[in-house]
Amino acid sequence: MQRQSDRPPITVGILGATGTVGQRFITLLSVHPWFAIHVLGASSRSAGKPYATAVNWKQITPMPSAVKDMVVEDCKPEAFKECGVIFSGLDADVAGDIEGAFRAAELAVFSNAKNYRRDPHVPLIVPLVNLEHLSIISQQQALHSPPLKKGFIVTNANCSTTAHVIPLSALERKFGPIDRLMVTTMQAISGAGYPGVPSLDIIDNVVPYISGEEEKIEWETRKILGGTADVEPEQLVGEKVLQEFDMHAHTPLKISASCNRVPVTVGHMINVSVKFSRSPPPSPQQVCEALRAYRPSAQVHGCPSAPVQAITVHDEPDRPQPRMDRAHQDGAGVSVGRVRQCPVLDIKFVVLADNVSIGAATSSIINAEYAVLKGVVR
Amino acid sequence: MQRQSDRPPITVGILGATGTVGQRFITLLSVHPWFAIHVLGASSRSAGKPYATAVNWKQITPMPSAVKDMVVEDCKPEAFKECGVIFSGLDADVAGDIEGAFRAAELAVFSNAKNYRRDPHVPLIVPLVNLEHLSIISQQQALHSPPLKKGFIVTNANCSTTAHVIPLSALERKFGPIDRLMVTTMQAISGAGYPGVPSLDIIDNVVPYISGEEEKIEWETRKILGGTADVEPEQLVGEKVLQEFDMHAHTPLKISASCNRVPVTVGHMINVSVKFSRSPPPSPQQVCEALRAYRPSAQVHGCPSAPVQAITVHDEPDRPQPRMDRAHQDGAGVSVGRVRQCPVLDIKFVVLADNVSIGAATSSIINAEYAVLKGVVR
Amino acid sequence: MQRQSDRPPITVGILGATGTVGQRFITLLSVHPWFAIHVLGASSRSAGKPYATAVNWKQITPMPSAVKDMVVEDCKPEAFKECGVIFSGLDADVAGDIEGAFRAAELAVFSNAKNYRRDPHVPLIVPLVNLEHLSIISQQQALHSPPLKKGFIVTNANCSTTAHVIPLSALERKFGPIDRLMVTTMQAISGAGYPGVPSLDIIDNVVPYISGEEEKIEWETRKILGGTADVEPEQLVGEKVLQEFDMHAHTPLKISASCNRVPVTVGHMINVSVKFSRSPPPSPQQVCEALRAYRPSAQVHGCPSAPVQAITVHDEPDRPQPRMDRAHQDGAGVSVGRVRQCPVLDIKFVVLADNVSIGAATSSIINAEYAVLKGVVR
Amino acid sequence: MQRQSDRPPITVGILGATGTVGQRFITLLSVHPWFAIHVLGASSRSAGKPYATAVNWKQITPMPSAVKDMVVEDCKPEAFKECGVIFSGLDADVAGDIEGAFRAAELAVFSNAKNYRRDPHVPLIVPLVNLEHLSIISQQQALHSPPLKKGFIVTNANCSTTAHVIPLSALERKFGPIDRLMVTTMQAISGAGYPGVPSLDIIDNVVPYISGEEEKIEWETRKILGGTADVEPEQLVGEKVLQEFDMHAHTPLKISASCNRVPVTVGHMINVSVKFSRSPPPSPQQVCEALRAYRPSAQVHGCPSAPVQAITVHDEPDRPQPRMDRAHQDGAGVSVGRVRQCPVLDIKFVVLADNVSIGAATSSIINAEYAVLKGVVR
Repeated sequence: MQRQSDRPPITVGILGATGTVGQRFITLLSVHPWFAIHVLGASSRSAGKPYATAVNWKQITPMPSAVKDMVVEDCKPEAFKECGVIFSGLDADVAGDIEGAFRAAELAVFSNAKNYRRDPHVPLIVPLVNLEHLSIISQQQALHSPPLKKGFIVTNANCSTTAHVIPLSALERKFGPIDRLMVTTMQAISGAGYPGVPSLDIIDNVVPYISGEEEKIEWETRKILGGTADVEPEQLVGEKVLQEFDMHAHTPLKISASCNRVPVTVGHMINVSVKFSRSPPPSPQQVCEALRAYRPSAQVHGCPSAPVQAITVHDEPDRPQPRMDRAHQDGAGVSVGRVRQCPVLDIKFVVLADNVSIGAATSSIINAEYAVLKGVVR
Repeated sequence: MQRQSDRPPITVGILGATGTVGQRFITLLSVHPWFAIHVLGASSRSAGKPYATAVNWKQITPMPSAVKDMVVEDCKPEAFKECGVIFSGLDADVAGDIEGAFRAAELAVFSNAKNYRRDPHVPLIVPLVNLEHLSIISQQQALHSPPLKKGFIVTNANCSTTAHVIPLSALERKFGPIDRLMVTTMQAISGAGYPGVPSLDIIDNVVPYISGEEEKIEWETRKILGGTADVEPEQLVGEKVLQEFDMHAHTPLKISASCNRVPVTVGHMINVSVKFSRSPPPSPQQVCEALRAYRPSAQVHGCPSAPVQAITVHDEPDRPQPRMDRAHQDGAGVSVGRVRQCPVLDIKFVVLADNVSIGAATSSIINAEYAVLKGVVR
Repeated sequence: MQRQSDRPPITVGILGATGTVGQRFITLLSVHPWFAIHVLGASSRSAGKPYATAVNWKQITPMPSAVKDMVVEDCKPEAFKECGVIFSGLDADVAGDIEGAFRAAELAVFSNAKNYRRDPHVPLIVPLVNLEHLSIISQQQALHSPPLKKGFIVTNANCSTTAHVIPLSALERKFGPIDRLMVTTMQAISGAGYPGVPSLDIIDNVVPYISGEEEKIEWETRKILGGTADVEPEQLVGEKVLQEFDMHAHTPLKISASCNRVPVTVGHMINVSVKFSRSPPPSPQQVCEALRAYRPSAQVHGCPSAPVQAITVHDEPDRPQPRMDRAHQDGAGVSVGRVRQCPVLDIKFVVLADNVSIGAATSSIINAEYAVLKGVVR
Repeated sequence: MQRQSDRPPITVGILGATGTVGQRFITLLSVHPWFAIHVLGASSRSAGKPYATAVNWKQITPMPSAVKDMVVEDCKPEAFKECGVIFSGLDADVAGDIEGAFRAAELAVFSNAKNYRRDPHVPLIVPLVNLEHLSIISQQQALHSPPLKKGFIVTNANCSTTAHVIPLSALERKFGPIDRLMVTTMQAISGAGYPGVPSLDIIDNVVPYISGEEEKIEWETRKILGGTADVEPEQLVGEKVLQEFDMHAHTPLKISASCNRVPVTVGHMINVSVKFSRSPPPSPQQVCEALRAYRPSAQVHGCPSAPVQAITVHDEPDRPQPRMDRAHQDGAGVSVGRVRQCPVLDIKFVVLADNVSIGAATSSIINAEYAVLKGVVR
């Protein structure tokens, strides 16, 4: 991607800039066509130091030279007030307060943290799925005390949720609602951040448990795949009717998630099995076609970080695989393989997603790109 | 285990003695209280050489000194005619003919190979589950041409099937038939033998496919968990009614298996979800109790290689794990953890089994022990 | 090993009992023929809790049932005053003060920590090498203020130092002093304790640096392989002449160590190259014979935890290997292979040592066994 | 790199195109500015099939679309006669005959195989070191029977040799000849090709032996770092004096190599220690400066695949590392770190090289680029 010269860049700030997700934001944004890194925020331990000194750089590409000498700021809104967009890679233990303060200061926050994902007025957006949920922002602003003009928070999903909702969205658009869903994950260690998983726990091993992860998948999937609906009885917010996320209420969606950590650096592999509401269900062939044809709004509207192919479907029986396929399209799409009938539900397949790209930083960035295109970010 | 002196040892031969399973047989049998290694058989490439020269020893315990100088024989019945028991770790491409010839030569063959698993007169036995299937042997002998007096073949199951049928057997005995079953495996590289999986395919990777494995799990599980029934219309074999395996016919069992290879040396991890026929289903607490209380025939009748505890149930949320738990009881039992409700089926849990012990050689050995106890081996 | 009944067990206390080394002490001592675990000490965070609750058990064998309900004590001498032996697996940041206090309280401390290794009156003992350095203890006690009757500290070496000094000791005894030594280590992650090395730092990776390790190897090797000598000019300690460690002064030993961390769970592999003082140097064949014949004092005097074979020499060109050979003799000996001429120095070979057994807890235990045999522990 | 339009592309053929090195050639050459893939050769098993069918693609970037439908040819010169350059990734068991036949057919062969590396008339070239050895080609052609006009063979070095000779070359140019050299390698599994190292041999393990590798390093290093000299007594080849490789004869170079395989996918790590002829030796600081300033002919003359920085010197104490640094400059340069004094020799440091790029295919390509620039390829 080349920086485009026909409009001034949008200045961005990065919260949690020294962390794993923050480093990924810097890597991606340093070559972004629209956004220019303006401020880096981190804990008071890092504040005041040049970024190169404050960070323990863990990306496999070198640190962009433009940020090396930037002095890290405390995560307080004052230093970020000229930023058109704030990206947050903050840890959950501090993200709630800081992101809230940034929103109150009329800043547009795109967050990877989990703190606001369940807020009824905050959209939880996987950018290849439900960008239309951005519409809830006006309500979020109107209900804020005091009401906001420009500030808001948008969250993106857990890295494992992101992987399977993309193909599921493609299937629901084509074949109608899914009724039941079983997902078994094999998640990469990078999903736990740094230092994250101790090596003694994972080399030559599988850990069949990730704290809170199964519940997140079961809950987030419903918010993302569901729509929005008028609250009953109707309540007005200004002149609009108050909206709520319907949590896939039109078809109660039963979800069972089982999460495992495996010795893979990057790339979440997920075994998915689904039962459709409609009968008969689509054939594996029809499912493959629908996945390949899926063209989400981020592509249609030209978000520069959206992948050319949202879902790459493999015909080889043993693909996708994390090491072989995670880097495809810089990790901005997902890969699907082994689409076949499920003897218990209807259809089963595997999904691979780059948990640090589409599963984290890339999602926030595409969300922000779409918000710019739609004028939500001004 | 100490060799017992109150009866003469039963001499055993090992087919495929230089292979991975053969090496495991040697390791286990060299300290067995009943069995004494008498002949080692391998391919003509190895025949005539001292075992220590012929083998590429890959066990993590040293080669037992008693076998080092044994001269490897061709896999022909003549050299094995004094063996009371034959253990076969042969590869599938040669096991069919060789095991058939050994049976025809009135030898008792306990095989890890897949070739005879689907034979309607050959029992497929997981020793902590369905030892009673040994009863089909008299029919196997009577129908052989010419009829056999002592020769027969007993097979044990695929290493991944073995893992989950043990807890499922415990559950069916306590709570009645299972109706639906979803299993997602994360299988160790040792399951593929040696050289097996190339390291470039599996380090920092997951391969979501193992050729033929899912079909084996779906088929074998039904044969193992099912019973035997009179063939209709009745046909006599001698004075007995011809029996057939009913393949869990009393409750058609829907099974969906998804198999993955992970970078683990030993220990298959399986995520299992089941739906019971009965309603309401048992609670997780009741399931845990049933698993802990499970006491299969191999224990009741005193097979020396049977584990003290068939199923070890973990209370910690993140156990069992391959590296931590596979060596428990020398891998002769299985470990279960994370027993909890499944939002789509009824109950889900994880199982860990040592694929080279209870998943392979240990199974054959317990099967043979039970056959000795029951007088099937004479 | 069976507990021997002909004398009362020696009660032992374990400091740092919840840590990695502490867990190993418990595992080994729970089946020790002489020692009986009496008190477990850990940080104030754990004190007062049953051991099973306080610990995050990371051994691959189950927690011995005898310690599960033992209430963890603070690391203060009062609770340990009846212990004949104290084993310390404390971290270096607290070991200095605590071990000093225990010594002052007349307790016999065998420590894995590095704090006292360079103390001129504290022996640094690799039990298959320099048990005779225990003789310095009387001087340590006499110089203490106030002088001690029973209290002392004995340290054992860094896990990587331990590996190579064992074969080097065998070579020096047979062929005279070594003049130059190059060691390149490939060290297991367990050497860094738990949580230790983050998995993101080591999967599919090598880290060519371990803080402080190269200096430790270069310094400790001289203290261990060197002897003791009268201080000049003579000073008396009581009626004895003050002794000092001569640091291999008779032949100034040049040592160059390069340390690397590799993705191996247990077992340090070391590439060693040596130049002897004598010329011509011994041949590879002579070196192999000397290594195989090596019989250190711990064996001669019957320390129960000493290995039967101190140094196992492999003839196969590709052995030893960590996964295949680390468990040999429960990790109490070392394995050597690839003994051959070095075109730059004289002889080169590889050494494998189990860094958590002979490299840590087993060393302390043999040191204590020898101290019991010699009457140093009373 | 963009294909340049100001001259017609040079057509190239690739021998062993389905193998690991062949795939890497295809990946690199499909975007090369000068070379255009014209013919793909492989064994008769693959010949006649479309490349996409014949190959088991193992690169982490997708197969270039241009080669998918190319029909694979037998490795016979006829099909390659229009190729200006032949790249060979053939296995050693067939490379000798095939490459010889291609040379005899007046083709210019750049080979990764070891077969001709020791031929006294074939240059063994690491392109960031000794491109001037190409001068021996005219002699190779003149001595061939019959003499050749265009055909020749150029080899590049073993992947582990390549890594350390680059910094050593920089040091010799600046500080004069090296006298002694100790190298200890930790080599990636990809160095063994595919299927290569069985996963059971390397997960959680180190193998301290690679067949033939140590001897290769010790021999190849001398040929590469040495010069060429007139044969004594002088013999004429045409009008020139016969040349021979002097094998570093001006300073007999003692080399001791120890080779280990580690569980790393790509990237050989090497611990190097050197003694210079000159005294006093350069300081670590001077060594770092010389390495950073090194500018080999491939850069000076503008080979398009040469790295911008031949040797990247790291200041961080724990770098380079394979996973973090191997992809730098697409693996065309090498990384050096931990430059420090060696207590036994003079200076020690670590080197990291991408064994499939500069250690294999990239070397051949730069060699060919330079041959084009020098008019050796016509």
